[in-house]
Amino acid sequence: MSRAHFDYDEAHGREVLRRALADYLGRVRGVLADPTQIVITSGFEQGRNLVCRALAARGAKRIGVENPSYTDWDPIRRTGLEIVPIPVDGDGMRVDLLDKRQVSAVMLTPAHQFPTGVVMSGERRVQLQDWLRRRETIALEDDYDSEFRYDRAPVRALQGLEPERVVYAGTASKTLAPALRLGWLIVPRHLLAEIHREQLLSDMGCPRIEQHTLAEFIVTGEFDRHLRRMRSQYRARRDALLDALATELPEASVEGIAAGLHATIRLPDRYDEKALRPELSRVGISLWYMSDHFVGAPSGPPTLLIGYARISESQIRAGIRALAAAIRATCS
Amino acid sequence: MSRAHFDYDEAHGREVLRRALADYLGRVRGVLADPTQIVITSGFEQGRNLVCRALAARGAKRIGVENPSYTDWDPIRRTGLEIVPIPVDGDGMRVDLLDKRQVSAVMLTPAHQFPTGVVMSGERRVQLQDWLRRRETIALEDDYDSEFRYDRAPVRALQGLEPERVVYAGTASKTLAPALRLGWLIVPRHLLAEIHREQLLSDMGCPRIEQHTLAEFIVTGEFDRHLRRMRSQYRARRDALLDALATELPEASVEGIAAGLHATIRLPDRYDEKALRPELSRVGISLWYMSDHFVGAPSGPPTLLIGYARISESQIRAGIRALAAAIRATCS
Repeated sequence: MSRAHFDYDEAHGREVLRRALADYLGRVRGVLADPTQIVITSGFEQGRNLVCRALAARGAKRIGVENPSYTDWDPIRRTGLEIVPIPVDGDGMRVDLLDKRQVSAVMLTPAHQFPTGVVMSGERRVQLQDWLRRRETIALEDDYDSEFRYDRAPVRALQGLEPERVVYAGTASKTLAPALRLGWLIVPRHLLAEIHREQLLSDMGCPRIEQHTLAEFIVTGEFDRHLRRMRSQYRARRDALLDALATELPEASVEGIAAGLHATIRLPDRYDEKALRPELSRVGISLWYMSDHFVGAPSGPPTLLIGYARISESQIRAGIRALAAAIRATCS
Repeated sequence: MSRAHFDYDEAHGREVLRRALADYLGRVRGVLADPTQIVITSGFEQGRNLVCRALAARGAKRIGVENPSYTDWDPIRRTGLEIVPIPVDGDGMRVDLLDKRQVSAVMLTPAHQFPTGVVMSGERRVQLQDWLRRRETIALEDDYDSEFRYDRAPVRALQGLEPERVVYAGTASKTLAPALRLGWLIVPRHLLAEIHREQLLSDMGCPRIEQHTLAEFIVTGEFDRHLRRMRSQYRARRDALLDALATELPEASVEGIAAGLHATIRLPDRYDEKALRPELSRVGISLWYMSDHFVGAPSGPPTLLIGYARISESQIRAGIRALAAAIRATCS
């Protein structure tokens, strides 16, 4: 970094990183972006908040969100938008309901829906594209988990299909570390000035040193190498998890695609999640429940969300054995 | 850093840095703070925005700001507060006007007022303390430039006098580099939950690696050593500036205390700032004008704000010679 790099300049992201990301995301995710359209944020959450504020300032009232989804609604409500849950099925968000629910914009995780684990189907993507054009509005694409697909190349980003109607959001939190607080948006040109303004109203941009470091990491190819290494590790962990489940808990079914950092495990309807929860707490098993991720009343069979990114294969096998024992103790 | 340190934990600041700052600021600025009351922000601007949002959420409507001041009002207005200019005289903000102007909270730079360069007098500080108690409200103390006082020890922070009614704000932007985007608040206990909530509504906290690095820099004494070195360098630059002015532009007077990273240079009333501005641009002299820093119509004689933090003593001398020549060419 030169002396000038330690100053306030380039609040919306250092050019060296914006260039590196434009190249990388074009190559790996099929996005169409000029470096000027990239905005570096302090993680996905800030990026999402900036986009929601800009949409609200343009008059958007109701934002459609996947249901179930992650449940971080307060910051979105704070921007003035009303949260409108849109059901997710095996093809992704039910785009056919967007008109009926009168939403003015939408946010979604097409590469790997959280928490169901489904990928948005090609037909559904075309439907969404039609809707965006017809309504002349914006989708915020949270390109969640796209880096970690294990069975084939991931589907390309929606942004590449419809760059003037999709804001693409990515993060280093899953690929490197949440502690970095580094994310990025690719913003349609017509929305760029508003996003820049919103960022200046929030802070003076995010720390610059990491931006130079991440740029270096990408352009030297180390980021690609890191992702290849991690994909192979995570895939082995996922395989260990699925093997252990097949042996220990054959009545469970694994939902969604072979991707990401968690598995979505559906239990038979007859199992009682209410009884299971305190037992899992008691034996020290920490996982998430699908039923906590609905806007409004949960629906569907008892479903567990099991993260495998930070535990070893032997811990995974031991964990699934303990999980199966706890389920036998409470649900049989 | 341990593995756990790379996660999302401690969104409001890493404990190791909050402890280091509580010790450091207690020792150097006389603040009274427990590490739990410290919130790490991505710079002063984010901290100020969080405080303004929390005050607005508590029902504050009008915030008193120093006039002249720095002119970054849009982010404050965006929080819902109305900006109410309060004049500054040789003793600092005119606290006696706060009631008449019906302000519900106040923000100020008591250690070194920007841009006038005055320090808030002891009497005025007591007056402010009385007002805060009587109105049961909050002052945001921007402890601007307190690290760089050249003639004596700086006055202690207001926060040490009235820790339940003052939010203290500091930054690494002046002492280390703006590119770090690191600042801190010391928050009265009764306001802490609201500030924490506002930070989570804005982002998930600022990057963690710098926080560990800055903590290390402080606890090893390197930060103190750095400040001693920089104080001596900046003082020599300020002295060079004042010497050059006395020689080249004896009709100019230097306002305010021997502190900070800029000098406030008052020119005789008869000089025409409007004529001077294009001439200084033309000869490549970059400085700020007091008249740009008023809320509403500017008042007072033509006054230049000359930064000396990033230029050498010989550049300073050459610059003042060029400035004097430009002034002779347009104002005599």
